[in-house]
Amino acid sequence: MSGQITISVDAMGGDNAPRAPIHGAKLLLRERPDVRFIFHGREEVIGPLLEEFSELKAVSDIRHSETVITMDDKPSQALRKGRGNSSMWAAIQSVKDGEAQVAISGGNTGALMAMATFCLRPIQGISRPAIAAIWPTLRSDIVVLDVGATIGADADLLVDFTILGSALARALFDTDTPSIGLLNVGVEEAKGNEWVKDAGKILSETHGAGFEYRGFVEGDDLGKGTVDVVVTEGFTGNIALKTAEGTARQVGTYLRNAMTSSIMSKIGALFARQALSAIKSKMDPRTVNGGVFLGLNGVVIKSHGGTDEIGYKSALGLAYDMARNDLIEKIGEGIRRFPRPDAPATISNPEAP
Amino acid sequence: MSGQITISVDAMGGDNAPRAPIHGAKLLLRERPDVRFIFHGREEVIGPLLEEFSELKAVSDIRHSETVITMDDKPSQALRKGRGNSSMWAAIQSVKDGEAQVAISGGNTGALMAMATFCLRPIQGISRPAIAAIWPTLRSDIVVLDVGATIGADADLLVDFTILGSALARALFDTDTPSIGLLNVGVEEAKGNEWVKDAGKILSETHGAGFEYRGFVEGDDLGKGTVDVVVTEGFTGNIALKTAEGTARQVGTYLRNAMTSSIMSKIGALFARQALSAIKSKMDPRTVNGGVFLGLNGVVIKSHGGTDEIGYKSALGLAYDMARNDLIEKIGEGIRRFPRPDAPATISNPEAP
Repeated sequence: MSGQITISVDAMGGDNAPRAPIHGAKLLLRERPDVRFIFHGREEVIGPLLEEFSELKAVSDIRHSETVITMDDKPSQALRKGRGNSSMWAAIQSVKDGEAQVAISGGNTGALMAMATFCLRPIQGISRPAIAAIWPTLRSDIVVLDVGATIGADADLLVDFTILGSALARALFDTDTPSIGLLNVGVEEAKGNEWVKDAGKILSETHGAGFEYRGFVEGDDLGKGTVDVVVTEGFTGNIALKTAEGTARQVGTYLRNAMTSSIMSKIGALFARQALSAIKSKMDPRTVNGGVFLGLNGVVIKSHGGTDEIGYKSALGLAYDMARNDLIEKIGEGIRRFPRPDAPATISNPEAP
Repeated sequence: MSGQITISVDAMGGDNAPRAPIHGAKLLLRERPDVRFIFHGREEVIGPLLEEFSELKAVSDIRHSETVITMDDKPSQALRKGRGNSSMWAAIQSVKDGEAQVAISGGNTGALMAMATFCLRPIQGISRPAIAAIWPTLRSDIVVLDVGATIGADADLLVDFTILGSALARALFDTDTPSIGLLNVGVEEAKGNEWVKDAGKILSETHGAGFEYRGFVEGDDLGKGTVDVVVTEGFTGNIALKTAEGTARQVGTYLRNAMTSSIMSKIGALFARQALSAIKSKMDPRTVNGGVFLGLNGVVIKSHGGTDEIGYKSALGLAYDMARNDLIEKIGEGIRRFPRPDAPATISNPEAP
């Protein structure tokens, strides 16, 4: 996509809103001078914050919304209470209306998914949306999906996720045919549950669809970065994601405790402080922030709710990159190239009202 | 259990067999002088190895088996080829015959599970066996099951796993009423798939059954050690286990690379070498080795196939502790105490032929 990128921000979502998203936007603007923002939420709190940063204010619009969706609102409650008049809904509506290429919120994940699905609707040819995570590995970042939008799957849904995930990999990484693996409990054909085995059969017979299917991968292939895209069902994907986050924190705690355990180790830590700070920033969850809602007629990103401006800057940067690299068009291309009789070769125009 | 503990060892299973299991047994004997071993396999290779260690030889029997199950044998092939006459089968048969309290093998997991189930049979009241892992956490070791014996589950199976896992925790840890969590994608009651929700309902209404149900836990609770026993279905549990192993290796690689990246960091590593070696041993997969097959009329342990004598020593030590602490009786007690109309209050006697 050429020209400016406009990001629609739910300024009220997340623990540190609206300060963290607005400060994060200021940080991104320094790196991406062609970005614009629409901040949705209470004008009386967003306005004064923008006054602090004249450069950001110059590229931003404020859209007042009265209602704020809270973390306690169930998805159905959020839809009843916030459809039309909440900052979360309005942020998504800006994408539907073609005012922005991508929306972002640090608010309630279930509510955001419900609103995004209701407002943007699934892309024709995709049965259900997924949440994709960008996963740091020993090789490079990879895409893992679904990490929590779905519970349970069938082979067709895993194939849908393959199309979506490979489009995201083409948009974010330097590859035209990303490698794909299906997450399983072994690499042999006979392993795993029926839906994974059936999806493996479909994918191994598919060629020229914009990805290269490499077969089954296991949990430890995630950290190795064996393939560009790991496809799984949302229950397992969510547990794998949180298990990895927890293990990284666990090992980080071992390291911190060890390096402060004696005078000698403290001296060692002093000498190695640059190296240790490099690891710390490598393992900083703020540097890889943002779950990408894929499969809707428009892109929505969920930021971690508890993050700060550094975390928001990462999520906003991810949003920028996806818009810049035409993610939605790449998904449409992926659907068209996938040889399925039941998948029409069109997608709705996200800019249509 | 008072008196000697006899461990029945498939001396031919695993990449480094029979050297690694025999050397591992020698290491365990130094710490547990009341242990005895029965080594199953080719007498012509086991015999000379035992000649090297007269103390081990004095507490060991060799039982010749002609057939060796390989990693390529499918479970059904292994049963056809190795029933009765393989070292793997014979190791399990010794438990059934009451000659040993526990069997161990580093061979083919699927074959071992098939043979163990066929030979020992599920305990009455338990529908299917599970594989439990001992999981190191920030708090202390915990039990996680199932990590790969089952694909798919229902609520009753998760309840069975709760009974089995809490018995293992009572046998290994210093607690009479271990805390239990069901692995899920959120802690709210409405989250997750049906089988987890239904199992949660059953467990929250159960009291006095030798455990304390604490509700749902998420992937990051594994590393924290929030509860003593985490219960899940085998597909998800296997992926969580391997994801955690992979993430630990990934962070370990970051650390190694960082500490060798510059002169300063190398000097730092020199000062901190004790601390770094403490982390290294904390993260050494050999120190926590052994998947425990639970739910059969006898205990079988699967060692990692690629491990060395240190890894075997850990797995043999785990086998010793489970036998010493009457795991099978604790499971029987757990089944009797669980208020289910369809669960008879008896288990088969594992010492009966």
